Amino acid sequence: MPRSDDFKAREAVLARVESWRRRAPKLTDETITMAHGAGGRASRSLIEAVIRPAFTNPALDGLEDAAVIQVDAGRMAFTTDAFVVTPRRFQGGSIGDLAVNGTVNDLAAVGAEPVALSVSLVLEEGFAVDELRAIVGDVSTAAAAADVNVVTGDTKVVERGAADGCYITTTGIGFVRPHTSLGASQVRPGDAVVLSGTVGDHGVAVMVARGDLALAADVASDTAPLHTLAKTLLEAVPETRWLRDPTRGGVASACNELAVDCGLGVELDEQALPVKGAVAGACELLGLDPLYIANEGKMLAVVPADATSRAVQAMQSCAAGAEACVIGSITDAHKGLVLVRTGFGGTRIVDMLVGDPLPRIC
Amino acid sequence: MPRSDDFKAREAVLARVESWRRRAPKLTDETITMAHGAGGRASRSLIEAVIRPAFTNPALDGLEDAAVIQVDAGRMAFTTDAFVVTPRRFQGGSIGDLAVNGTVNDLAAVGAEPVALSVSLVLEEGFAVDELRAIVGDVSTAAAAADVNVVTGDTKVVERGAADGCYITTTGIGFVRPHTSLGASQVRPGDAVVLSGTVGDHGVAVMVARGDLALAADVASDTAPLHTLAKTLLEAVPETRWLRDPTRGGVASACNELAVDCGLGVELDEQALPVKGAVAGACELLGLDPLYIANEGKMLAVVPADATSRAVQAMQSCAAGAEACVIGSITDAHKGLVLVRTGFGGTRIVDMLVGDPLPRIC
Repeated sequence: MPRSDDFKAREAVLARVESWRRRAPKLTDETITMAHGAGGRASRSLIEAVIRPAFTNPALDGLEDAAVIQVDAGRMAFTTDAFVVTPRRFQGGSIGDLAVNGTVNDLAAVGAEPVALSVSLVLEEGFAVDELRAIVGDVSTAAAAADVNVVTGDTKVVERGAADGCYITTTGIGFVRPHTSLGASQVRPGDAVVLSGTVGDHGVAVMVARGDLALAADVASDTAPLHTLAKTLLEAVPETRWLRDPTRGGVASACNELAVDCGLGVELDEQALPVKGAVAGACELLGLDPLYIANEGKMLAVVPADATSRAVQAMQSCAAGAEACVIGSITDAHKGLVLVRTGFGGTRIVDMLVGDPLPRIC
Repeated sequence: MPRSDDFKAREAVLARVESWRRRAPKLTDETITMAHGAGGRASRSLIEAVIRPAFTNPALDGLEDAAVIQVDAGRMAFTTDAFVVTPRRFQGGSIGDLAVNGTVNDLAAVGAEPVALSVSLVLEEGFAVDELRAIVGDVSTAAAAADVNVVTGDTKVVERGAADGCYITTTGIGFVRPHTSLGASQVRPGDAVVLSGTVGDHGVAVMVARGDLALAADVASDTAPLHTLAKTLLEAVPETRWLRDPTRGGVASACNELAVDCGLGVELDEQALPVKGAVAGACELLGLDPLYIANEGKMLAVVPADATSRAVQAMQSCAAGAEACVIGSITDAHKGLVLVRTGFGGTRIVDMLVGDPLPRIC
């Protein structure tokens, strides 16, 4: 074969290879394989077919190893959370909703507006691509509802049996609103403790979804983004002392951390605590205290006594805070402890959670 | 009992409870239990005994749900990676080293100086606390070596059998150096492809640690932070076009992504590719191509042809780049494809990785 024919043949082969490669990678697998985590062709097809379509935005579309976004100077908040909830879907939400809202709410609790999220997945070999698509869809919907973009991510695959389906780690960045000065050290005796709504909905919804309960309680998770509620509160009450979203360990654990961190006592009024009937019933049946049950869409706030009604009204003006109310106060008695005034006029100590009545709740 | 005695007795009980609670929480468990993930007393004891001592810095010490750091205006880079490597310890490093260096290097690859890291752990019930302490120590040492603080984190625990020991997700933020303009769209025909050192060390070190190889090759992982190397290169060659740390899928996959993203061809010179003898031997034995093997401390750069020697010298001036060399060039022939010129004068196409010869390499 003369040299020029050889060259032409080679060029023709390369052109065919190139045109084959130009086609968008198609995902034909119905379940995740180890190859989807290898960083090669299968990884790219998974990203192109499932991940990228859910999160189109300029920072992500470059698909570089890191997203680059323009930011202004300021106090940046940075938070991360792993989500391992089981089951992955329950009434009111899914692991995808939690992964966004949990991180958005950690930003909200330091007074920050969310700017961008990263999402990292650990998938078990054999995980259904359709379920992954649904979860990624939930992440995308929740991110849109929270006005934040997912700008970067990572996907790893482990062998069958080395994970339980799908774990998600979400990291968020945001900017703290100017003139906010939140922290346990700001808290003073006499301050009011305000809660944005009912306790225990998320924990009980997950328990019901597990089928652990004999009863089929009609309880939906409260998973919701709280950045608007926090913003509304901080605009109405700039002197707000402290915020926390009481997730794992519930309101009791959040108040205990507050009591230790501020060196004062927290006194809660059991009768003031908003609990849905179905949640109270489920807790009674299982011998659980709603104060310890996880929430995924509630904000706990400490505000100066004279700002109490302004704070409650601000929360109530938001969809996520319609049932906001005062649940207690800060005292310089019983420093470092949380006491609950019971319906019978007595008090009991509500200590930090010991053990774990509800593992893998978020 | 008169009222005042009642009051005194109550105060005495509270004082005793308070003094008990003031003591630093002690971690007496030798293995991780579900309670360590519950957000209560056990979680706090794990954090106080193992996590916090390893990472003392002002942003973390608040232990709020989010860290708050002061930043200047600029182009912020944001990147996340999950680490699931098995085994967790291998010659030259551990999952803790990878978790820091992998994220620092993703920042370096977009021209960013690391500012802060978050670390999220998913632990399996029964995981040894001593091993966790060692891994957290490696994270801390690697972070110090990379001049970056771990400012926030999260720990979740899943039941025995629902994870393989310990998974880590690290997220990093950093600021892109002014006047850098990196990206595949900057790449031009005639540009040189420079690599900072030998290929395949990490992948082979992990394979050896797995005991999968009959031979006991003396190969250490190359895990290392590359922010200084990237900075040195970008100062010496501000017109650098593109950077990438070739981890999963190796140099071959990184070059394939480059070829697709820039719409040009990449031509590599097999004989120029630096490969350690032991790595080459292990690959030959297993029928693997070193071009596809993961690296954890190497940087691939595309620079204008006239900056080639400046780029190589800049890399060589850094410990992590002592063996830097030119390994190929960019061409407007065979667009979107990577060709390797073999030692025999022929060429072969190096396609994206199909399947996964080395699962859970990082």
